[in-house]
Amino acid sequence: MPETATPDSTRPDTAAPYLPTERTVPTRSKERASYDRKLVHSILDAAYVCHLGFVRDGAPVVLPTLFGRIGERLYVHGSTGSRPLRAADGADPGLPVCLTVTHVDALVLARSAFHHSLNYRSVMVHGVAVTVTDPEERRIALDAIVDQVVPGRSRDARPADAKELAATAVIRLDLDEVSAKVRTGGPGDEPADVGLPHWAGIVPLTRGYAEPVPADDLDPAIAVPPYLSR
Amino acid sequence: MPETATPDSTRPDTAAPYLPTERTVPTRSKERASYDRKLVHSILDAAYVCHLGFVRDGAPVVLPTLFGRIGERLYVHGSTGSRPLRAADGADPGLPVCLTVTHVDALVLARSAFHHSLNYRSVMVHGVAVTVTDPEERRIALDAIVDQVVPGRSRDARPADAKELAATAVIRLDLDEVSAKVRTGGPGDEPADVGLPHWAGIVPLTRGYAEPVPADDLDPAIAVPPYLSR
Repeated sequence: MPETATPDSTRPDTAAPYLPTERTVPTRSKERASYDRKLVHSILDAAYVCHLGFVRDGAPVVLPTLFGRIGERLYVHGSTGSRPLRAADGADPGLPVCLTVTHVDALVLARSAFHHSLNYRSVMVHGVAVTVTDPEERRIALDAIVDQVVPGRSRDARPADAKELAATAVIRLDLDEVSAKVRTGGPGDEPADVGLPHWAGIVPLTRGYAEPVPADDLDPAIAVPPYLSR
Repeated sequence: MPETATPDSTRPDTAAPYLPTERTVPTRSKERASYDRKLVHSILDAAYVCHLGFVRDGAPVVLPTLFGRIGERLYVHGSTGSRPLRAADGADPGLPVCLTVTHVDALVLARSAFHHSLNYRSVMVHGVAVTVTDPEERRIALDAIVDQVVPGRSRDARPADAKELAATAVIRLDLDEVSAKVRTGGPGDEPADVGLPHWAGIVPLTRGYAEPVPADDLDPAIAVPPYLSR
């Protein structure tokens, strides 16, 4: 350790990639893996849900759920009665989880059945989720989860009151053991198949907002906010 | 057992719902759970990927992957070298998995941060995945996986040859311990919040095909097939 190490030297350099580990190096399609922090953040931030995996009674469970990101930390919330959030709580060392986010960008049609694929962007985070007890961290985490659904929305909604906060458990998962996996481009047909009479290429998928539908009891004088116009 | 039981009496009645079990009854939002077979099938069939959870070295892993359905069986394929597919193989009793499919249909904006949500349809399947060795079952499973990406496509592609088949592992998961979870409708604001000045309602999400992009080396005489026109 250099004597000039500053108190901040244990914090990750935010420009540096995540360090690959045994379980974040894929066994196949290694060329699709990335540890780039900005890429990982962009994939996470574009998602509405993650798939949270944990082990219960020795068997895996994969739960789709809302989440939010603040810097190098992910937050998931839920009822204080929900099983994974209870398991992350209290005196135990936390809940081992794998949190995965996936976007399907295009269908990839090859001449051969074997080379059919999808273009996608995914992120997989391994770690131990712990319960957040600090009131201020809980508050900003809940804002982040609302803003993950609609960026900026938390400033235009009533914040949680004491009763709602008491009913809500928040867990945190640090972005530490993380990888992205991305496939782009056209089909990877075998040279011998290129002359076959089957259409080949990609079908990009579109995603967007349809016209917002006001709640039945919304005051008609309240207009659709600008952050929904995209 | 009635003496009139037929040899087929152990097969599930395809009109009957799945039987709830301890792990397919949710701890919260029970009113969103369903065991309806047709609903489960429709949610599965509309998906491009599933999230497959399994346990490796005691920790959960959640892998996004292609899949296919034939009746009451799901199939996942991969390289024979991939870790989950190796773990499902051979003399061991198979690989305990949880396979989850999720569609996000709309963003739900409430006056309160607490009641923000998503409208979604999800299916969760618990079970033990086993390696498929029967050549005919492997062949129809691989067709089903291609047809999950684009219905009907397997008839318009070169089938896998012996070398490709040898490189591909296929695992099967029976639809037995299964539940769907669906949220629809508008925000569930507290009556006391209805007069707050925040817009509330839902933002439906759209999904569709963009213009297909032919492979660089595609013969220009080959037109976009009709099954891509939607």
